Amino acid sequence: MAELRQDPICGRWVIIATERAARPSDFTLGRGDPKGGFCPFCEGNEDRTPPEIAAVRPGGGPSDSPGWRVRVVPNKFPALSLNGHAVAPGTGHRRRAPGVGTHEVIIESPRHAISPTDMPPSDFEHVIRTYCRRAEALDADSRLAYVLIFKNVGQEAGASIEHAHSQIVGVPVMPRRVAEELERCEQFYRHNGRCLLCDVLAEDLEDGTRVVAQTESFVALSPFAAAFPFTVWLLPRFHAGCLFDMGADQEAELARLFQEAMARVEICLNDPPFNYAVHAAPTAAGGRRDECCHWHIELIPRVTRVAGFEWGTGFYINPVEPESAAAYLRNVTDRQVAERIARQPAGSGDGRAQARHSRS
Amino acid sequence: MAELRQDPICGRWVIIATERAARPSDFTLGRGDPKGGFCPFCEGNEDRTPPEIAAVRPGGGPSDSPGWRVRVVPNKFPALSLNGHAVAPGTGHRRRAPGVGTHEVIIESPRHAISPTDMPPSDFEHVIRTYCRRAEALDADSRLAYVLIFKNVGQEAGASIEHAHSQIVGVPVMPRRVAEELERCEQFYRHNGRCLLCDVLAEDLEDGTRVVAQTESFVALSPFAAAFPFTVWLLPRFHAGCLFDMGADQEAELARLFQEAMARVEICLNDPPFNYAVHAAPTAAGGRRDECCHWHIELIPRVTRVAGFEWGTGFYINPVEPESAAAYLRNVTDRQVAERIARQPAGSGDGRAQARHSRS
Repeated sequence: MAELRQDPICGRWVIIATERAARPSDFTLGRGDPKGGFCPFCEGNEDRTPPEIAAVRPGGGPSDSPGWRVRVVPNKFPALSLNGHAVAPGTGHRRRAPGVGTHEVIIESPRHAISPTDMPPSDFEHVIRTYCRRAEALDADSRLAYVLIFKNVGQEAGASIEHAHSQIVGVPVMPRRVAEELERCEQFYRHNGRCLLCDVLAEDLEDGTRVVAQTESFVALSPFAAAFPFTVWLLPRFHAGCLFDMGADQEAELARLFQEAMARVEICLNDPPFNYAVHAAPTAAGGRRDECCHWHIELIPRVTRVAGFEWGTGFYINPVEPESAAAYLRNVTDRQVAERIARQPAGSGDGRAQARHSRS
Repeated sequence: MAELRQDPICGRWVIIATERAARPSDFTLGRGDPKGGFCPFCEGNEDRTPPEIAAVRPGGGPSDSPGWRVRVVPNKFPALSLNGHAVAPGTGHRRRAPGVGTHEVIIESPRHAISPTDMPPSDFEHVIRTYCRRAEALDADSRLAYVLIFKNVGQEAGASIEHAHSQIVGVPVMPRRVAEELERCEQFYRHNGRCLLCDVLAEDLEDGTRVVAQTESFVALSPFAAAFPFTVWLLPRFHAGCLFDMGADQEAELARLFQEAMARVEICLNDPPFNYAVHAAPTAAGGRRDECCHWHIELIPRVTRVAGFEWGTGFYINPVEPESAAAYLRNVTDRQVAERIARQPAGSGDGRAQARHSRS
């Protein structure tokens, strides 16, 4: 089982996941090359993943059989595992704990899609609904303090499998970055009786220069102090701590705006590798605090590299003013967006996937 | 001039450096390819850099002429500039300030060396001495709160120029990561009357499993909660907040151990891209606190990729137990280390440089 350790100097938690790789030679070859040929995530290969946790199967049918739109399976090489008892980390400066937690994979499409923009909108809706249902289910697990939904697209963004998939990790201790955000949001709430992100959003909507796109209930923004060029935040206009507290109509609306935001980024930057992550309130066991958390999705195209300066200080250099990035993203036409979504033919990797993966 | 902005939610400072790049198309081609042919950092090309700030010129001679061992020049495309007045960032959740600061480049060798292990030990000593002298000089600038010395080797580690060089950035506000480390170290000091890192080091020396190499005054360690595989910390056995408070003999001893540590990492991992950064006390204007800061150099081989999980949580997954990494690094023989150091012939890039740069 993996082990959790906390850095005594900076407080960062690390999962020491020795099941995943071991010898120095594992790191000296090209890492994470897209596997040519066989894909364990494509429809028909259900027996090549661990048994499924959940699936969207509109026509019914047994688990681990074809006919699904979205499938959730345990990660075959999990960073954390629920086979064990969570133990509170000790005090002192050598804090460690067993690696109890969960690590699931959401296979987003039965076809070998690469990006969420390769999917028909109705399919991407299933992905968003699946995020909500899994987040809700894991929220109830008293062993987990925080649940993170995230996605890596392209090798440079950390993806080792090309087929469109997201991941959900549930951790037993509060991650440092989440704790920092919580602290700032709570402090603002105590002083002002309002949610900090509600205020930020209202100001950005009034100002307009950082708005990328919007619908009735959601907004896509270029954040004021983005650390990376062309970062986009998606967030609800209404206050909500958790992704899963919304109606079916809103889930569909979010899927639509999110796909549009990704299409704008892909068109502007010629299909960059990217990551996204859902920032939300801690689980019930982690202390929730819905009143001061406002969930948002952070989408980060990986077009600059993090280097010594960033690791040494936590200070970032962004060569593009967020207001300019927003203007570029807004200037992509609706027609370009419509043409991009679901444009990929059925079947395996095309030139676009190659471009995304071989970029250096 | 660049602008500093603080993220309202997580508190991270970002330099919005719009002089450096502008349009989306700047990010859509391969970025930072090593330039073939001409190198502005090689001896004889002194007129292709901004006028030098300092240099080691054992035989004497005018500024910006050949005959140097190490040269310090302003960064031609600085992230920050001292041409302006530092303004305290406002309060509220849109904190911004002019990008006042400094950004220098240390050219480590007149030859086209790639890694510090390509240099004769006597030349690398000059590099360490130059770090100390520049850190000391910038420490006295009342506009700077923190000074970071760092280095990027290889494209994947963020290097855009191949020729061995380091950078020094001085920033006018306290970086978040530094503030966090300070807070933990101060708290420990208040409770225990001792330096936290002195305690950590004493325990690691007694335990032995994480020690990589040591000399009379310095130790190379595999840190207990390393976020990245094969991370190495170099630190003094004696307590010191700043790199520049040591004698000439100790500077030479540090250079020797540091070069050995890099050689061990390069041999184990087959010349990986890497970063290192010097963590030290803030400047005089930044509040110093020498009693609870213990300087150390963090060396990070870039063999895994940071992805959505890490960005979303600040939680890291390390697939190699730090104790195993230390054993692999210790098991490199002294003879292998000796053969590696300064093995590169004079002249431009060889196969080794190619390998480091084209790795993906």
